[in-house]
Amino acid sequence: MTFHEMWADLAPIGRHADSGGYRRYAWTGADADCRAWFRAQAEARGLAYETDRNGNQWAWLGDPLAGDAVVTGSHLDSVPDGGAFDGPLGVVSSFAALDELRARGVEFTRPLAITNFGDEEGARFGLACVGSRLAAGQLTKEKAYALRDADGISLPEAMAAAGYDPEAIGADPERLARIGAFVELHVEQGRALDLSGDAVGVASSIWPHGRWRYDFAGEANHAGTTRIADRRDPMLPYAETVLAARREAELAGAVATFGKIAVEPNGVNAIPSLVRGWLDARAADEVTLDQVIGGVRQAALAHAERHGVELAVTRESFTPVVEFQHALRDELTRILGEKTPVLGTGAGHDAGILSASVPTAMLFVRNPTGISHSPAEHAAEDDCTAGVLALADVLEGLACR
Amino acid sequence: MTFHEMWADLAPIGRHADSGGYRRYAWTGADADCRAWFRAQAEARGLAYETDRNGNQWAWLGDPLAGDAVVTGSHLDSVPDGGAFDGPLGVVSSFAALDELRARGVEFTRPLAITNFGDEEGARFGLACVGSRLAAGQLTKEKAYALRDADGISLPEAMAAAGYDPEAIGADPERLARIGAFVELHVEQGRALDLSGDAVGVASSIWPHGRWRYDFAGEANHAGTTRIADRRDPMLPYAETVLAARREAELAGAVATFGKIAVEPNGVNAIPSLVRGWLDARAADEVTLDQVIGGVRQAALAHAERHGVELAVTRESFTPVVEFQHALRDELTRILGEKTPVLGTGAGHDAGILSASVPTAMLFVRNPTGISHSPAEHAAEDDCTAGVLALADVLEGLACR
Repeated sequence: MTFHEMWADLAPIGRHADSGGYRRYAWTGADADCRAWFRAQAEARGLAYETDRNGNQWAWLGDPLAGDAVVTGSHLDSVPDGGAFDGPLGVVSSFAALDELRARGVEFTRPLAITNFGDEEGARFGLACVGSRLAAGQLTKEKAYALRDADGISLPEAMAAAGYDPEAIGADPERLARIGAFVELHVEQGRALDLSGDAVGVASSIWPHGRWRYDFAGEANHAGTTRIADRRDPMLPYAETVLAARREAELAGAVATFGKIAVEPNGVNAIPSLVRGWLDARAADEVTLDQVIGGVRQAALAHAERHGVELAVTRESFTPVVEFQHALRDELTRILGEKTPVLGTGAGHDAGILSASVPTAMLFVRNPTGISHSPAEHAAEDDCTAGVLALADVLEGLACR
Repeated sequence: MTFHEMWADLAPIGRHADSGGYRRYAWTGADADCRAWFRAQAEARGLAYETDRNGNQWAWLGDPLAGDAVVTGSHLDSVPDGGAFDGPLGVVSSFAALDELRARGVEFTRPLAITNFGDEEGARFGLACVGSRLAAGQLTKEKAYALRDADGISLPEAMAAAGYDPEAIGADPERLARIGAFVELHVEQGRALDLSGDAVGVASSIWPHGRWRYDFAGEANHAGTTRIADRRDPMLPYAETVLAARREAELAGAVATFGKIAVEPNGVNAIPSLVRGWLDARAADEVTLDQVIGGVRQAALAHAERHGVELAVTRESFTPVVEFQHALRDELTRILGEKTPVLGTGAGHDAGILSASVPTAMLFVRNPTGISHSPAEHAAEDDCTAGVLALADVLEGLACR
């Protein structure tokens, strides 16, 4: 199968008719279809297929136990109504790059594997990169067992229902120790390559990022009869905090977003008792990020006090900066040409998780609009081809004579 | 049964264990229990009980067909997690006032009725005062049939399931023509009586009020990777509009509230594609209300444009000012004393609906905090007693020799 054929084969799986976006959530039917597709691609190429204890898929060329393997891949699951490229572009490009290398007639000197990491987006259980986190020992079995989806189904229940053994999950250091280099190709989720005019770039780092929950607790009351002076309306400091987050991010050259909100009782004629907003903030370094989140918190506290509203801020997650291994990154720019742009990213990836355990690098493919996590996510055909060739060059440089 | 005994009898019905608030929604089990309580109170007093074609309950002393009846009552249903007083205080006080008049040994010269109007709060089907609107011909059978609850159950299905005939609903002009005066006692939902130091007041008018839906449509994108400059984030003009509504209301001496919001996709790491907010606005007169909603809309449009966000504003409902009949209102202040405060209110009531068809008045009982539509809603025991005595005086003045 060519790149085009693989892409067309994947396209209908988990696509939602109304939104045109993808709903490929971990351990669902759409996920099973994606996994069957991966296995078929592996077997069609004569690769040795296996699923690891955490449900991640592997397709091996050469001896999986020999060590110093070169591994490439990404994920096939999606955010709610996500695009076609985030994840699948990396997996499809991996198979296409192997085909390219075979066409070149190269001789492999190291084992090569293609992977599909499970539950990267965390759309179902609320935690991203579950498959790679488990493998890298960054998520304990106990904590994974406590994850539940919106219907109350636990992660082990969902795995078991999909035919996997949830008893087996956990850190997999032997497997990671066999990897000499991991390279993940991914559609860019910003516009850096579009602005620089390049089809492909190399990752420098993943920005430190985190999520903070802001609980503004006021007093429920009748929206028609409660005088302005008697109100303790938590929607007002919430609104001020949304605007403060934008201001702080602009000042710092960072990003800060309130994209999720829960309101109680959420009635048209009721002053809310509670407005809960989630702040997602990211910056190029931790000092800058601290400055942004400190500024937002300070503004929120001042506005909450002015409105007689209680505020609790809870850090729900935090991921420090990930610097990809400099030696591997430099090797990639040597292979691809010294003019290849090197860029940071605000998004988390399995590569970021694995980078704590193995030498890891990423390739980005140009996104003409920067839009991602949306049905409008796109990469041009020529750029996808350039991505496949760049990945083939990298794999040849790392794994072939 | 004394006032206390009636209150204690009603107290457990539909009370939610966790919130301590009431969930007495139209045509549910809790509603049926409230209705059974009403019927038992009527029968215990030898009153003639009937349910009208729209499911409103009536308890008659004297001939229902004689005409020129004096009617008092309120409702027993609640908002989600509402308080104990909004509605029930008027119904319990009506029975207690009748007991008081009988103890006084008065002679009735006009028929007297006590009512419980169905579905006043609109908690289940989203439209308030359904029972009185139907009776007054302000809600057609066709529109009532189109009402559905959050589970998709239609109003006629819910009525039928509760044992009522939905075929019969509709305007009931003969019944309303028999009413000479309707008086509704209600807990105040603001602090005017608390500030003036009075236990009981008389209503002047119900403020004009309405609901407007603000749909801010931006562009879904990744919160971690999308540059601030590339965003079309609808949460930002929403936040500006929340603050503009507060400013406009303060300037005008009105009230304006964003208490309900719906966000898509509502993900922590997603810039929203859509933020939908509902504005509830009320003012003492329509000119002032127009000024407030015009100012909010203008600010919202300007901020939406600045952020590249589309805005659509839809008026979902509008109720013009209700001036209660001056002659009846003056009669009440004559009976209760010329110093009785006369006050407007921002809340809608069955009395407001009926005022278009019959002479109507309202009594308010002091609310020490102004809190309503909340488990913390309260009225002091002495003030409840003062309310019963005031209602008894009014009924005696209107219906007795």
